Amino acid sequence: MKKSKPRILVVNDDGIDAPGIRALIEVMQELGEVTVVAPDSPQSGMGHAITIAKPLRLDKVDLYKGVDMYKSSGTPVDCVKLAVNIVFKGKKPDLCVSGINHGLNNSINVIYSGTMSAAVEGAIESIPSIGFSLDDFTYEADFSHCKKYIKVIASQVLQHGLQPGTLLNVNFPKGAGINGIKICRQANAKWAEDFDKRLDPHKRNYYWLTGVFQNNDHGQDTDVWALENGYVSLVPVQFDMTAHHTIPVLNSWDLDVTKD
Amino acid sequence: MKKSKPRILVVNDDGIDAPGIRALIEVMQELGEVTVVAPDSPQSGMGHAITIAKPLRLDKVDLYKGVDMYKSSGTPVDCVKLAVNIVFKGKKPDLCVSGINHGLNNSINVIYSGTMSAAVEGAIESIPSIGFSLDDFTYEADFSHCKKYIKVIASQVLQHGLQPGTLLNVNFPKGAGINGIKICRQANAKWAEDFDKRLDPHKRNYYWLTGVFQNNDHGQDTDVWALENGYVSLVPVQFDMTAHHTIPVLNSWDLDVTKD
Repeated sequence: MKKSKPRILVVNDDGIDAPGIRALIEVMQELGEVTVVAPDSPQSGMGHAITIAKPLRLDKVDLYKGVDMYKSSGTPVDCVKLAVNIVFKGKKPDLCVSGINHGLNNSINVIYSGTMSAAVEGAIESIPSIGFSLDDFTYEADFSHCKKYIKVIASQVLQHGLQPGTLLNVNFPKGAGINGIKICRQANAKWAEDFDKRLDPHKRNYYWLTGVFQNNDHGQDTDVWALENGYVSLVPVQFDMTAHHTIPVLNSWDLDVTKD
Repeated sequence: MKKSKPRILVVNDDGIDAPGIRALIEVMQELGEVTVVAPDSPQSGMGHAITIAKPLRLDKVDLYKGVDMYKSSGTPVDCVKLAVNIVFKGKKPDLCVSGINHGLNNSINVIYSGTMSAAVEGAIESIPSIGFSLDDFTYEADFSHCKKYIKVIASQVLQHGLQPGTLLNVNFPKGAGINGIKICRQANAKWAEDFDKRLDPHKRNYYWLTGVFQNNDHGQDTDVWALENGYVSLVPVQFDMTAHHTIPVLNSWDLDVTKD
């Protein structure tokens, strides 16, 4: 009996018409049956937001041949929930891939990124999930050098699965001269925010969020190091956020409320 | 020389006029100098979203006596960034507390919650940070039984600090009969989403996100167990999302891209 083709959910945060999701769809069509559920507008920086105070739209669209596609008014995480519940009707896909994001999602960006949060939601749904991002935030970004790596990584995930509660965060350097894939940990880096203060025509202040990425981590086993040295970074991510190592410290605290 | 009072940032996701933040402000006024930067509208379920495609407002308000207060059009995480950069002008506060949320943020809710994401952002900024939430999502929720626990926990954090890269997630059962505080891990639970499908007056479909909380974790060391058994749950949280335990597994994979 011939094994049926894997069913693959593709999602992103840059919106259904972004070049990055098109590149990802093209690779996934070589691996299985593709269904796309993606936001109808850009949702960068949406993190793990869900929509609870407004209703959601979900509409079928016909952008690429042979691909079942839906656009939604929701966040990237909403899209995964809509896909699982409405589109797949509870019969979960074999793989969930998110991206390819226009812009890096390495290090602490995993937590701000709509792309990665969609993949995290896939993993919460027990679907093997991967987020892909490229170090180029422009519309004109060239994704062609990413494709063979995406195919190999997705194939390995389809073959081996992923450990429960985990997913993958894959980031690509810009340009074709890639040295290989490095399995990494999330670098201890952050954004030092800055705000551009302006005056509107009605003389009221407003602020644009800007920031500078600060890497405080000198390890050579991090995603920041891998990308700086021409490697594709592959970080396994988990959604158990418990700091297990600090539980003994907290148990030594004096938490007696009767003394006050 | 008298030691100066600790400078405390209070934030939330239910909005600056929510009863929950008022209760938290009242406790913090017993411990230090309070500054509030909170959203001007409800932001539940916003996760770690930040605002990059729109400008932000930040306006001084005068709601409670003796408290320096600002409301913002941004997300809870934006509020922390605005507080650190604009209000505190880079001189970080000694403590960041978020809440008290109207509704639980235990288990997987840590990842969807604006309340907890604000506390996570405080920790990313290297500020000792705590999120507080009560098992009652109504406007009329009674927070009075939480106050002595909040005071003890915040005092311990001010005294001992927190390990780098960590923060606390504290959840309260509803009602006064509390058995004490339990240090826990995040339960392995999830929301089984469901969508309420409706037809708008123009005959187009729309969907309301709903869901059922499913606990798949039978451990007695979880936050779900603690709350079900009348304890305040205290989970240490970290923002390093690396699944360190799976790195050896991934290193055994065949990631050779030259074979295709």
